[in-house]
Order: sequence, then C-alpha cells, then structure tokens
Amino acid sequence: MRIAQVAANTEPVPPQGYGGTELIVSLLTDELVRRGHEVTLFAAGTSKTRAKLITVVDEPLRAAGKYNMLQWPAFDMQTLIEVENRQDQFDIVHSHMSWSALPVLDRLKCATVTTMHNQVKPYCEGIYLRYKHLPYVAISESFKALNKPDQLNYVGTVYNGIRVQDFHSSNDTDQRKGLLFVGRLCKDKGTAEALDVAKKLNMPLTIAGKVDKNDEAYFDQEVKPRLDNSDARFVGEVNHDQKVELYGKALAVVYPINFNEPFGLVMAEALAAGTPVMAFDRGSVREVLDDPKTSIIGSTVDDLVKRFPELQHINRNDCVERVQNLFSVEKMVDSYEAVYERLLKQRA
Amino acid sequence: MRIAQVAANTEPVPPQGYGGTELIVSLLTDELVRRGHEVTLFAAGTSKTRAKLITVVDEPLRAAGKYNMLQWPAFDMQTLIEVENRQDQFDIVHSHMSWSALPVLDRLKCATVTTMHNQVKPYCEGIYLRYKHLPYVAISESFKALNKPDQLNYVGTVYNGIRVQDFHSSNDTDQRKGLLFVGRLCKDKGTAEALDVAKKLNMPLTIAGKVDKNDEAYFDQEVKPRLDNSDARFVGEVNHDQKVELYGKALAVVYPINFNEPFGLVMAEALAAGTPVMAFDRGSVREVLDDPKTSIIGSTVDDLVKRFPELQHINRNDCVERVQNLFSVEKMVDSYEAVYERLLKQRA
Repeated sequence: MRIAQVAANTEPVPPQGYGGTELIVSLLTDELVRRGHEVTLFAAGTSKTRAKLITVVDEPLRAAGKYNMLQWPAFDMQTLIEVENRQDQFDIVHSHMSWSALPVLDRLKCATVTTMHNQVKPYCEGIYLRYKHLPYVAISESFKALNKPDQLNYVGTVYNGIRVQDFHSSNDTDQRKGLLFVGRLCKDKGTAEALDVAKKLNMPLTIAGKVDKNDEAYFDQEVKPRLDNSDARFVGEVNHDQKVELYGKALAVVYPINFNEPFGLVMAEALAAGTPVMAFDRGSVREVLDDPKTSIIGSTVDDLVKRFPELQHINRNDCVERVQNLFSVEKMVDSYEAVYERLLKQRA
Repeated sequence: MRIAQVAANTEPVPPQGYGGTELIVSLLTDELVRRGHEVTLFAAGTSKTRAKLITVVDEPLRAAGKYNMLQWPAFDMQTLIEVENRQDQFDIVHSHMSWSALPVLDRLKCATVTTMHNQVKPYCEGIYLRYKHLPYVAISESFKALNKPDQLNYVGTVYNGIRVQDFHSSNDTDQRKGLLFVGRLCKDKGTAEALDVAKKLNMPLTIAGKVDKNDEAYFDQEVKPRLDNSDARFVGEVNHDQKVELYGKALAVVYPINFNEPFGLVMAEALAAGTPVMAFDRGSVREVLDDPKTSIIGSTVDDLVKRFPELQHINRNDCVERVQNLFSVEKMVDSYEAVYERLLKQRA
C-alpha cells in the first residue's frame, strides 16, 4: 500500500520528551515500512524515520523557538500543500494533525483517515461537524463515546500501541514491594487518592511525574500534606529506563483517575512490565484493564484498599499477554492496516 | 452589490488601540453600507458595524485571553466555514485574513479578493504561491513591488484610507513650532535620525509612540543618549485626540524611515492635519508624499536639514487636498468598488 502519514510540525517524530502523538506516528510509520508498505512521512525536520521523509521546516517549531506561535499553523498548511501536490502518489493519507487538516483532506482525491488523538473541545467543535463525513479513528471506545459518536464518521477504534519488549523488567518479582504512581501530579490523575490508598494499606508509595504550573496549587494543598504524613517519596520526572525499573519493582500501579481519560498509556505500560493496576472506573480503564485477571477496578479509595489482597492471585504473564494482544505496536498496526483496507475497498 | 467582509477574530472591528487592519475593515464596511451595498461583516463578537455582523466567538480572542494562541486559528477557520455556508448570498467575498483563508477562498463559487495587509514573509510564502491565482489587492505600489509582483495575481492597488476630517486641527497655524515624530520608537522608524534632524536644526522635537520590548536595547543605546542631549521630549503613547493636537502644533513631521514600509499611515495623517512631512526615500514614501508641493524627501539627515527652509513655501491646504484625493476613506471605497466591479465583470 502507498501510505502518507501526516504529522504536525511542532514536535519531531519520534518526540524528544513530550509528544504522545508523535510517538504513535513514529511507531506506526516504522512498522508499516517493516511490513513492506511504501510510506511517506510528512513531519518536522530532524525527524527520524524508516519512511521517506518530507519536511517543510528544518527544525521542529517548539524547539526552534524562532517563530511566533501564530505562525506555526502556516507550516502545517504548507505540509498539507505538499500532501495535496503529491496525492497521486498515495492510496491513503493518514492525518494526525487534528482539525487544521480537515479542509484539505476533504478535497483530496485519494482515501483519507484522521486519528483523533485529542478530544473535540468547544473551540474546534464546529470544524469537526463541518467535516463530520470524513473518516475518523478513535483511540478507544471510551474516547469515541465522549466525542460526537453519533455525528462523526468513525470507521474504527485503534488503541495506541507500545513496544511491549521495552517494558520487560529484569527485576526479580520476589523483590517487588510498595506501590507506584506514574503521571502528572494533578486532580485528574488522582495523585491524592493514590497517596490515600497507600496510607490505608500502610505501604510505601513512589510518585513519578511532573507538576505542571497549573497544578501547583493542587500539589501544595492536596499532595504535599499527604506526602509529609506518609511513607511515600516523590521522585519527579523519570526517563524511560527509570520508569521501567520503577514498574518492575512495584507490587502494583495505583491509577485512581478522576476524569474520563481517552486512553491511559500508563496502564498499558504497567501491564507490559508485569505489574497489575489498581484503578478507578473512569474513561478507558475497563477497556485497558481486565478485572480480576490482570487488575482491580473500583470506584473509591476503600474499594481498592479492600480488594488489594486479590493482587497476589494475579499472574504477571497474563498482564504481559494482555498488552501484547491488545496494546502492542503490532496490534495497533494490524488494526490500522485493516482500517486502510476497508476504506480502500469501499472506494473500489 | 452583496459583499462579505471577512476579518480575523483576534481584534474587534473597529479595533481598540492596536489593529490597523481592523480599522480599515471598519471604515470600508461602514462606507459600503452607506453607499447602499448589502454588506455582511464576519468579525469577532463585540465588533460594531453598520453591516450585518456574523460572529463565531463572543469576544475578540486577544482581549478574551482565555484561549491558547494555538487555538486562535480554529476560530478563523470557523468564520471561513460560515462564509462558505453562506456563499450563495454574496457576489464577492473580500478577505482581510491573510494566508489562512486562502484554501477556503479557493473553493468558493463566488468572486473573492484578498487585501494584502501584511508582507509575504518566508514562513507563509509557500502558501501564497500555492494560491497565487487568487485575486489580490496591494496597499501600495511599493508594497506590491516587494511582495511577489510577478507571481501573485494582483488585481489592483488600493491605498488605506483615513477619515480626513478627523485630523483637522483647531490650532492656529501661527502657533506651530518644533518638529514631531510619531510611531514606534525603533530602528525601522528612524527615531534616532529624527532626533539628529532636530538637533542639527536646533529645534524642539516631540516624540510620541511606544517602545516595544524588542526595541528596548535600541531605545537605551540610540534614543536615550540623544534625548538627554537635546531639546526633545518623549511623551509616550498618545490617543487619537492627543495625536491630532500634536500634528496641529508641529511645523513638520520627521519621518526618516530605514525600511521599505508598505504604507506609512502617519504621513497621510500628518498631511490631513495640514502638516508637511520630512521623510527618507524608502518604501511608499514617494507614493504618499508629493515633493516639493506638500513635503520634503531626502536620503540622509543632512538632506532633510538642508531643505528644511523650503517648508515655509508649502501650502497647508495642498497637504489636506492631497490626502482627500488619494488617502481618504471615500477614495479607498471608490477604489474597492472599482475592483469588485472589475472582478464581477470578468466572471460575467
């Protein structure tokens, strides 16, 4: 298949640090190339890919730091002009650029599909509704349910995939102890509730993640007092290797989210490391976790505390196997290939 | 004629303070309504107009302050969707939105024209060249010469217009004394050269305008030492009434610009107040000023100093008359009406 992958110019593909969408684009693109497809990646300069790379700007815009933010969309528009100029070379154009690409996608003669990496917020709702007939992919059923399921033309749900082998921990499972929280320290992610779970279980908790400027008041009011009064430690942001090590040393990841998260990558990562998850029943949690085979799902801190003893029955291999089957790069690319084929068949 | 005027959502129409483009849109729109056209203005909420107003956001984006700058373009795209939805209601769509509107203008079935209020910079050049066949209006011949004259489909040059009567000063001309500099204090506008002209003529100079953050070093290194060593005073930013009073009290405006300015509004304002201008020969200066009938044009500080005595022969009525004939709102709207008619005739 001749496939174009279209990313925005803000971050490189793959990203350095922040940039979840660009990581998925990178994993998808390289695996499609490995499978023999003819893939062209439209992305910012300095991107690294096994595909043919087409760029309109030497450096990713955020890192370059030399353009006004109001100028950034002009580069994405120039990417779209390049896509349009080359449309005869593609069977399908897969956009990861969100609403800004829709008017141009609508006039391409080849097939297109847009992955909804971000929620449809009020500021861009009118644009999606204008282009609701274009084919969209949701990143979870939970995401779809929250984002105009009856109006947008969803043609599939494809979970984000991770490189499962990268989360294999060399730690002896007998050495696991304590609980782990990974993610931004904020109300949505439930950092305070994670501390409460650990406190009630009388267990140590490691907290890894960053405090955004917006969340400083939450940190001061909700997190800090609990930290001072517990056997928990806050280690700040961690890199991939440190994260894998933390997963491998933990008895369980605590994931008491307070919002309908479209897709919880941390849950998939924890399972890939053989670490069960104790989560609140919100957003994509029931899609990612399999209670009671690989995880525990509850509605309150006390639910999770009460069910903690069940964790000893969980087989770590079942956790890894679930990720391999549902949330691996291979599974993600299988699913996108199926979407592409379906769309092309419909046009034939 | 059924005319749509399309403005961005950043500032209201007319603007409060900063917003040269929105002022032109306001003057043009209201005068077209006065002349009996059926005009629809697409602009941010709180805009005031005699036309039918269509908005996609309650408040202008900059003043609202509640959206991330990366979200601002989504509102302009929604404005364009509204334009597209209503295209059957218009004979012509006149865009003031720069490059971001071009892909949608290109698919409208009615006539379109885009006024180039801003220069084609490298970051958006590729977009203009992709849509070079669309009809464009330049705001001066000098602007056109600097912005792809051989590639873009320029269908006319229309000078920005001012309300000439608003610059009429009640000051007795006998009371005029000293020189005046109006504009941002920066290298491009030649603040230092204006101070040098005044110094060499041994005359007082009033400097009105703001110092942008980017220009603070210039102010400290070039302006401040000259201010300390002269009979000049810096009065900061001034409002319209204060500006008119300053024009009316000055013997001449000094305008020693160091860049090819597309259109120098200050020159037109000064002439409208009956005040001649002493300017460097750059950008649109020779289009706006008529040397020696209403002004003096030179290449160096010494040129202007040497020719200063000629100012006594200038008839202030000639200055006002020149603005009325070339740079008045009435003239601007005459010119746009002619452009619209030409474009519609071509399609008939």
